[in-house]
Amino acid sequence: METTKIILPEKEIPQRWYNINPDLPAPLAPPIHPGTGQPIGPDDLAPIFPMELIKQEVSMEPWIEIPDEVLRVYRLWRPSPLYRAHQLEEHLGTPARIYYKNESFSPPGSHKPNTAVAQAYYNKQEGVTRIATETGAGQWGSALAFGCGLFGLDCTVYMVRVSYEQKPYRRILMETWGAEVFPSPTDKTNSGRSILEKDPDTSGSLGIAISEAVEDAATHDDTKYSLGSVLNHVLLHQTIVGLEIKEQLKLAGDEANMIIGCVGGGSNFAGAAFPFVKDKLDGKDIDIIACEPTACPTLTRGAYRYDFGDTAQLTPLLKMYTLGHSFVPPPIHAGGLRYHGDAPLMCLLVNQGVIEARAFHQNPTFEAAVTFARTEGFLPAPETAHCILATIDEALKCKETGEEKCIVIAYSGHGFFDLGAYEQYLGNQLEDYEYPQEMIEEALKAVPEVAE
Amino acid sequence: METTKIILPEKEIPQRWYNINPDLPAPLAPPIHPGTGQPIGPDDLAPIFPMELIKQEVSMEPWIEIPDEVLRVYRLWRPSPLYRAHQLEEHLGTPARIYYKNESFSPPGSHKPNTAVAQAYYNKQEGVTRIATETGAGQWGSALAFGCGLFGLDCTVYMVRVSYEQKPYRRILMETWGAEVFPSPTDKTNSGRSILEKDPDTSGSLGIAISEAVEDAATHDDTKYSLGSVLNHVLLHQTIVGLEIKEQLKLAGDEANMIIGCVGGGSNFAGAAFPFVKDKLDGKDIDIIACEPTACPTLTRGAYRYDFGDTAQLTPLLKMYTLGHSFVPPPIHAGGLRYHGDAPLMCLLVNQGVIEARAFHQNPTFEAAVTFARTEGFLPAPETAHCILATIDEALKCKETGEEKCIVIAYSGHGFFDLGAYEQYLGNQLEDYEYPQEMIEEALKAVPEVAE
Repeated sequence: METTKIILPEKEIPQRWYNINPDLPAPLAPPIHPGTGQPIGPDDLAPIFPMELIKQEVSMEPWIEIPDEVLRVYRLWRPSPLYRAHQLEEHLGTPARIYYKNESFSPPGSHKPNTAVAQAYYNKQEGVTRIATETGAGQWGSALAFGCGLFGLDCTVYMVRVSYEQKPYRRILMETWGAEVFPSPTDKTNSGRSILEKDPDTSGSLGIAISEAVEDAATHDDTKYSLGSVLNHVLLHQTIVGLEIKEQLKLAGDEANMIIGCVGGGSNFAGAAFPFVKDKLDGKDIDIIACEPTACPTLTRGAYRYDFGDTAQLTPLLKMYTLGHSFVPPPIHAGGLRYHGDAPLMCLLVNQGVIEARAFHQNPTFEAAVTFARTEGFLPAPETAHCILATIDEALKCKETGEEKCIVIAYSGHGFFDLGAYEQYLGNQLEDYEYPQEMIEEALKAVPEVAE
Repeated sequence: METTKIILPEKEIPQRWYNINPDLPAPLAPPIHPGTGQPIGPDDLAPIFPMELIKQEVSMEPWIEIPDEVLRVYRLWRPSPLYRAHQLEEHLGTPARIYYKNESFSPPGSHKPNTAVAQAYYNKQEGVTRIATETGAGQWGSALAFGCGLFGLDCTVYMVRVSYEQKPYRRILMETWGAEVFPSPTDKTNSGRSILEKDPDTSGSLGIAISEAVEDAATHDDTKYSLGSVLNHVLLHQTIVGLEIKEQLKLAGDEANMIIGCVGGGSNFAGAAFPFVKDKLDGKDIDIIACEPTACPTLTRGAYRYDFGDTAQLTPLLKMYTLGHSFVPPPIHAGGLRYHGDAPLMCLLVNQGVIEARAFHQNPTFEAAVTFARTEGFLPAPETAHCILATIDEALKCKETGEEKCIVIAYSGHGFFDLGAYEQYLGNQLEDYEYPQEMIEEALKAVPEVAE
């Protein structure tokens, strides 16, 4: 009998996260304080993050223990199943072996709670009683609301107003887990009020929502701030995904030739890929492919330099691929892949040629998603669809060459909250966007020069 | 380390369904032809069902082999995990051991594909190329669309117009799997046209949609009809759920004292409970509890007699608990629990005192659902919330008495498509309905007398 799901027993759940920092082929450039122009130290971060996460952010230890309380919550959906995509393989007629690591079974439906749960735990340990964060379409906010709900922490989510109004479902999900959700900008913060004064009808932006959440945390003693991607400690928590994949491939008697994931801020991708990046740095022949939208081609066409993490220029400057912090993404449906920058750890590895980046248009990604739904059954998130398309491309190449490659998809989440986008695709109403090069160059002019 | 998920290995997936028919404590009354008043035979059903399903409908074999092709699709989410609800138990402070069998990981998100996949397979085997069905809110339609999509069958879904218009997400899900979905009544059938003539603006009903789907199947040679609950063969296919639970409890070294499930047409409940009903009939002390809404109290306050399966009086007459085929359910959010009748197999067991029925109000069920979401993390469907409430009641009784009961919940599906209902609950806008006794008695007057 063929095996469909490779299940790692609960007692073999990885007990440590993998920290790639000490294994990098070049040192990671430090974040720079936007005011002083100097590298940021732990003290600068203490008002907004708990100390344990700050330590993880700069740690050079290759392995970091996962607390028992975090593992207990992880076990609600972890180890997550690694699927062999038999039906998709047959449909394509490929000799390739395709696997997908299914993170959609977590209660919020994506990989995001891998870090949300850990962050909620460390905050609680240090006496924090409330966490503030921002969210766009709500994927991250709902993961943090879930994590806080289970640890009994209050959770305040600043949700970009246009999403708050147009996409009520994720908001209600957050509220069901006990979070309070405000349409951003609010009148609760200085940053919010100053925006509302200028433009009372603004639809908000992720940049504004970040400013509000950070200000909330910085001005309340019992409250810290939490971020769902980009930072080192966030990527660290996600590595449990890749560590599980390695164990599961061993159980299947197989070895990966190719790891394919989508990239928004980089945490989903890094989580699946970093344990394999280590093997590659140790000399193993393995292709590690990052997928992004042509509408937001950060890794494929951005510049590798210091830039702000947010539009409002309030965050530290990070060394990363960037389209410029003033980048306004076209309205594509992979809302999680519309960030102007990317995690510094990922960007360094792309810059060093360890990770390869590819960009895809929206219509073919949805076509791939529908093919997947009609063969494997599961409905992928639009973000996840990017790596399905890249995988189908590679599997069809194998069909031509006869190569029996082992391809692993980082299947990051389900598409139950994205059916409006599927409807547009099925009705031929989706547009493909190629972000214009001159607009990238124009936006990069506003990025400050940082002496390295 | 405590275990959270009890996982049955794929190779130990049950290979046979359990047919309760030969084990019943009294013979099952046959369905009656509405025209002739005579018991229905296989020939009467041949125009609308494939022969293999008709055979299963009347089979007296205790075990029926599951075809390999069906098992192959089942393995996308089966064996499904049996969870130990550690966090809920702690929150309640109960000595009871609570388990939930999580059927929400199937691609459509509920138990429904257990039969949809089997029905699609048998139809395909007999050369059928298209299946027609009806759906209300879309739970069943999406399961059948999924099953047909994977077996390459066309699927036509008549969706009650008001749901088609107000709840587009499940429709889009069906279309993504390749089904064609029409708002019922349509101008494609005689039944639909005759309704539209009288009332062009009708919002439709499940009864009308059934009539259209049956007519479609009866008037097209390549097309059969499919039903998602009530019938014996549907309940049969669901028994894989209970068979897995038994194996999983063995792995956990535990034994059930109580099985709790919600009842709409009875297929979810029967699937989890029938393998335990057999033990009870063999003398084991086990409580088997069926949960329904007070707004649709079929088992708790209906009459046990022959009635039509549909409002339009087109289906065979079935011996069951019924609120009368003209019953119009109040607009509660557990859309899957608003049927006026129930599966004859279930009803017989309720009538014989083997299964106990309880009814619950809508607000406390949502309160139970929110408690569950904030402890176990997963968001239950409103239907599923009924058995969570019954379980919390029982677990709190155990807290008083000190009894260490083992309670198993048939967790039938997720609530991602029901967030509008959660919003109403969180905003104190939900009404509780106690269906009036005089309206039940009035409706029962229109039910024909059948000589038994």
